[in-house]
Amino acid sequence: MVKVTVWNEYRHERKNPVVREIYPNGIHGAIAGFLTEAGFEARTATLDEPEHGLTDEVLNDTEVLIWWGHLAHEEVKDEVVQKVKRRVLDGMGLIVLHSGHFSKIFKELMGTGCDLKWREADEKERLWVVAPGHPIAEGIGEYIELEKEEMYGEFFDIPAPDELVFTSWFEGGEVFRSGCAYTRGNGKVFYFRPGHETYPTYHHKDIQRVLVNAVKWARSVARRRPVYGNVKPLEPIKVKA
Amino acid sequence: MVKVTVWNEYRHERKNPVVREIYPNGIHGAIAGFLTEAGFEARTATLDEPEHGLTDEVLNDTEVLIWWGHLAHEEVKDEVVQKVKRRVLDGMGLIVLHSGHFSKIFKELMGTGCDLKWREADEKERLWVVAPGHPIAEGIGEYIELEKEEMYGEFFDIPAPDELVFTSWFEGGEVFRSGCAYTRGNGKVFYFRPGHETYPTYHHKDIQRVLVNAVKWARSVARRRPVYGNVKPLEPIKVKA
Amino acid sequence: MVKVTVWNEYRHERKNPVVREIYPNGIHGAIAGFLTEAGFEARTATLDEPEHGLTDEVLNDTEVLIWWGHLAHEEVKDEVVQKVKRRVLDGMGLIVLHSGHFSKIFKELMGTGCDLKWREADEKERLWVVAPGHPIAEGIGEYIELEKEEMYGEFFDIPAPDELVFTSWFEGGEVFRSGCAYTRGNGKVFYFRPGHETYPTYHHKDIQRVLVNAVKWARSVARRRPVYGNVKPLEPIKVKA
Amino acid sequence: MVKVTVWNEYRHERKNPVVREIYPNGIHGAIAGFLTEAGFEARTATLDEPEHGLTDEVLNDTEVLIWWGHLAHEEVKDEVVQKVKRRVLDGMGLIVLHSGHFSKIFKELMGTGCDLKWREADEKERLWVVAPGHPIAEGIGEYIELEKEEMYGEFFDIPAPDELVFTSWFEGGEVFRSGCAYTRGNGKVFYFRPGHETYPTYHHKDIQRVLVNAVKWARSVARRRPVYGNVKPLEPIKVKA
Repeated sequence: MVKVTVWNEYRHERKNPVVREIYPNGIHGAIAGFLTEAGFEARTATLDEPEHGLTDEVLNDTEVLIWWGHLAHEEVKDEVVQKVKRRVLDGMGLIVLHSGHFSKIFKELMGTGCDLKWREADEKERLWVVAPGHPIAEGIGEYIELEKEEMYGEFFDIPAPDELVFTSWFEGGEVFRSGCAYTRGNGKVFYFRPGHETYPTYHHKDIQRVLVNAVKWARSVARRRPVYGNVKPLEPIKVKA
Repeated sequence: MVKVTVWNEYRHERKNPVVREIYPNGIHGAIAGFLTEAGFEARTATLDEPEHGLTDEVLNDTEVLIWWGHLAHEEVKDEVVQKVKRRVLDGMGLIVLHSGHFSKIFKELMGTGCDLKWREADEKERLWVVAPGHPIAEGIGEYIELEKEEMYGEFFDIPAPDELVFTSWFEGGEVFRSGCAYTRGNGKVFYFRPGHETYPTYHHKDIQRVLVNAVKWARSVARRRPVYGNVKPLEPIKVKA
Repeated sequence: MVKVTVWNEYRHERKNPVVREIYPNGIHGAIAGFLTEAGFEARTATLDEPEHGLTDEVLNDTEVLIWWGHLAHEEVKDEVVQKVKRRVLDGMGLIVLHSGHFSKIFKELMGTGCDLKWREADEKERLWVVAPGHPIAEGIGEYIELEKEEMYGEFFDIPAPDELVFTSWFEGGEVFRSGCAYTRGNGKVFYFRPGHETYPTYHHKDIQRVLVNAVKWARSVARRRPVYGNVKPLEPIKVKA
Repeated sequence: MVKVTVWNEYRHERKNPVVREIYPNGIHGAIAGFLTEAGFEARTATLDEPEHGLTDEVLNDTEVLIWWGHLAHEEVKDEVVQKVKRRVLDGMGLIVLHSGHFSKIFKELMGTGCDLKWREADEKERLWVVAPGHPIAEGIGEYIELEKEEMYGEFFDIPAPDELVFTSWFEGGEVFRSGCAYTRGNGKVFYFRPGHETYPTYHHKDIQRVLVNAVKWARSVARRRPVYGNVKPLEPIKVKA
């Protein structure tokens, strides 16, 4: 039973009745809900809790962290970001959603600007599977269709993904690398594009399936921390003239 | 004629007569020397110059930046690091040498800890070419042999390289991914392991050839900055019910 | 002055007046034409010449081979395919165009089925640059727009590209990895999607620019053949009990 | 309970008493033995059985195929090779061991020559983990040490692995990419270097652990076959002038 923490900024839901109607328990509540049904041990944490809900106790007990943020990336304390980063490099999985592309933690782990094009126009998105053998695409058909979503377009300023799982088609003419898998240190990172707050994206069965798969993928192995620093030779070294 | 700036911490050479004897003009002077002979326009910059020698004027006029640092990574100002990072993402090439694996700029661009094993034991290193078709390996035989070098050993905490060009064998029993190529934003980054200050590594013809090749590779294309932010649709979007 | 051979099946042009009007000298003639103007030494070869125009003399004198085929993949002799493959693994660049995805040589080098979805419907294709720092995208804006092309859609059954340079958007709702770069042995391989015979795609300035860039990229380094087989130790081996 | 078939050429064991003493039930028997203990449903198949033991019935009931061959690669029928290849592209996992680098099936799937350097000199091999977060390295320490093995050295003429898990150090001075993971079609392929017939390599606990991990990794997802060929548009296409 994987231990998942779903982190959400949780501002849109409190300000905007449209969002609140779609996600009465917050985006975090919705995601934690279907993860619990899938058999994971899911808890939530939000920006306005002390330490953003990400105390040492919580982080050390988290195998996979899911991250949704948008309006308030700058309010996330650098100290918390550094703690999360250390946990990822030590093996905690991290799943970054939608506007989380601009979160401090994602930019820290990517090393690039993570910028992109965007547009809010109620347009259709179709996420094509470009790696059908990848565990994150398990049980998904050839594509996922979302009737209305925000558009994100290339160039997406990320390192080339270690594995590209989904590529999106948008009605307005753009494409986007929308499911990007990385390994960083001992940890796995998955960026998944969909999930604008004004659409019921996280209620979509296929989107839920992708997140369930991603949690399994992100935690799948027992990892140990490598030895670093000054070491003795394993073999004799010839003394040179 | 590519414009190269060779940045060096330039502390070992001033403190340690052994190093000074090997590099009387500093490591930066040695590298700028053979790059000039190879037909590049090479200048140098060092830590203790104002703005570490990396003024806007210098950076904006640099197509490829080479970086050697070791003792004083923490003394490099964050502001300069951020400027260098922006230039890399905009297309400036960056070649990071040896102990530069722990420089702020390399860690920023990698997003990982960049730690490794190490040992100073006058041991033999043999850098095997594992990508013979890569332009950085042009003109190099099957391997480069260095009679004495510092050892760096795996696990090297970096993202999996976009292209792995060299892998080192060490006399004491370790291996190391010693030539690692990345693209970050519009810029190219190459990490090249050899070059401990107490050995004449940068006087070795094959090492010089690799650096000449890496400069050509790192600057090779005219790049333009992508458009980011809010954009208009390229195609009509159907109004949905 | 790179030596390029442009190979074309050259059947559509002789059968179909629509194609002949667009390419009066054949697709090979059109491509060789703009490559010559770009300063390369370009010759052509076609299926119905003896040995398909790919004699040892021609192949040994070719630095980059361009391949267009569609109707008659099965007529290409296995012996010629094996010769081309050996030349690629020894360092000759190979650029495979459009329906060449199903050519024997491409399938041999990929090891997969290379199948895809397709549709002829005069629809719009927009090739987005997803690697703006790649030399093959040099001088190209954010995308190339083709008013009418054949559609190719995912899943495209190829190994994940070493470098993905373009991704296509299609009017009818699909996406496609349309510019895929690989290294195989000492050789470089680039698959480039556009170029259906009934459209004037190879007269488009940006498509020509991509092919000029790809030729430079595919030949860019002096390569040597690695040593294989039984070798003597480079270091003494301890006799074990 | 994953269904595994362990295929072995099974010639060395019958000819050479040294090999027979190490593997009285054949290499296939040894491997099937510890896989069974690990909870898999393991069966075996060998070259001299009818259809090499790889009937349609067996292949269709195999989730992961393990392959050991050396002396008689040429005796494996092309028809069987093509069947195995189709099964891999449809999702069957394939683990290729040691001298299997030169098997027809591995060369078919790689598209390259798969050649390498080799030496039989009772020398030490140390397999360093270069991807500690990879499921195939689960439970393995920093390296696996084998007191005596055959040496395989770079350049290994394979496509750059999708994921490089192990890199070997050899006493005689070479390195080798010894654990290489690929996706081909819907299937996963893992090449694992150790296992010369005259050494008890497959009795080593860590080697067994790697193979157990590799079986889990190679079969891990339910995959479906993509749709290929002519398709109807998903979106309306504007008729152009």
